[in-house]
Amino acid sequence: MTSLSIPPVTLVLGGARSGKSAHAEKLVEGQPAGWIYLATATAGDGEMAERINRHRERRGDGWRTVEEPLDLTAVLQAETSANSVILVDCLTLWLSNILFAELDVEHEIKRLVECLPGLAGPVVLVSNEVGLGIVPDNALARRFRDDAGRLNQAVAAAADSVIFVAAGLPLSLKQPSA
Amino acid sequence: MTSLSIPPVTLVLGGARSGKSAHAEKLVEGQPAGWIYLATATAGDGEMAERINRHRERRGDGWRTVEEPLDLTAVLQAETSANSVILVDCLTLWLSNILFAELDVEHEIKRLVECLPGLAGPVVLVSNEVGLGIVPDNALARRFRDDAGRLNQAVAAAADSVIFVAAGLPLSLKQPSA
Amino acid sequence: MTSLSIPPVTLVLGGARSGKSAHAEKLVEGQPAGWIYLATATAGDGEMAERINRHRERRGDGWRTVEEPLDLTAVLQAETSANSVILVDCLTLWLSNILFAELDVEHEIKRLVECLPGLAGPVVLVSNEVGLGIVPDNALARRFRDDAGRLNQAVAAAADSVIFVAAGLPLSLKQPSA
Repeated sequence: MTSLSIPPVTLVLGGARSGKSAHAEKLVEGQPAGWIYLATATAGDGEMAERINRHRERRGDGWRTVEEPLDLTAVLQAETSANSVILVDCLTLWLSNILFAELDVEHEIKRLVECLPGLAGPVVLVSNEVGLGIVPDNALARRFRDDAGRLNQAVAAAADSVIFVAAGLPLSLKQPSA
Repeated sequence: MTSLSIPPVTLVLGGARSGKSAHAEKLVEGQPAGWIYLATATAGDGEMAERINRHRERRGDGWRTVEEPLDLTAVLQAETSANSVILVDCLTLWLSNILFAELDVEHEIKRLVECLPGLAGPVVLVSNEVGLGIVPDNALARRFRDDAGRLNQAVAAAADSVIFVAAGLPLSLKQPSA
Repeated sequence: MTSLSIPPVTLVLGGARSGKSAHAEKLVEGQPAGWIYLATATAGDGEMAERINRHRERRGDGWRTVEEPLDLTAVLQAETSANSVILVDCLTLWLSNILFAELDVEHEIKRLVECLPGLAGPVVLVSNEVGLGIVPDNALARRFRDDAGRLNQAVAAAADSVIFVAAGLPLSLKQPSA
């Protein structure tokens, strides 16, 4: 049996094109276990399909891909194991899927956060920081920004390790106690 | 007489829903002295009233609230004392009040920053970082972003401690010399 | 001959009005060599002309100014020397010039990044972080944000030192190995 050197729950936070996904992939590929890419994106529009392809090309062999736009919690509970590391890319897109599907955002965030400590194997979650620009004009964007901030806070509180990525460079915001 | 372990001037900087206010409240509640919440918000519209209520619920007993949308400097000078800690929440809203009231922004920032070293008791100021998104379309938002950046720089220069909060986690940008 | 205590390539990253240019100027002015200000701005509109003037006033004597909106690589190769330090202010504006001139963005970024290790003297590059706000409404702004993120990642990877500036305060993201 392989031994993992990654904490149970890692959150990788960063802006658009910050290198956060590439950093998270490197963390996972540093582990000997099976690598699972849990994509919350659906290839609905052209921009997104192109982005998914670029991600896929960057990741080497050895990855298994699972797609789940909505029920992240159920898939995490089903797929985690002592012999794998799951990368969730990304929480922000999952949040917008939840909002678009008119699910109960607060409830879904609570479900996700509560499942994290009991997972059977390590998970690395990627999320966008979206609250550092000017206040958006429209109420929907403000609501999304608020929900995204609360999601990031809740997951960060449950995570063992939180890393902020800017220009491809990691900055530790929270470290597992030694 | 109680002894305070907080530096004279602390700036807590962060994005929307970053947990900056909660972090600032924890700093203040770590002190034995009387806690004063200096709100720069006015409950003018529904969104803001809801937000103020949520803040109020989170804060426990033992807080006294003072509201002042414009003359922050005068209220700080009147309310600070060796037996209290004041939390100003937040500077960004104060700036937008100043702009809306068509006061002289540069002069008001100067007044605020110049009063900080002479206050009779410690103050914790909360402010938004708003300059890390794409350039806003309209000139007013660009002006606000510029003024907010200058305000944050000026207060940070006058502060003994500056903390950046992301996803609820603090990152020290400036520490009081030991 | 004077001895320089600045690494070959420094990237100073920050938001709007974060104090990033002032910080970069201080880094350069800490060096004994001749100081060159490489401006990528052109005084095309009023806002920008005003901004350029404010920068010029802040910088003391002892600076030589070179303006180049597009061919940054050629100017860096021509102007760097063991007896000077060049400040490029800023990369984000250069990127928007490149986009506006309909040059090949990917190629121009590659040219810039590849020239950096071979320059004859030290360079300090200033760039904006623009990816930490809400997703912009229009496709052009999204494209710019993506390109800016990729530019910052590529330059950060080639830099010896990367500094993030918020509220005028520097935070090291990458340090030259001692």
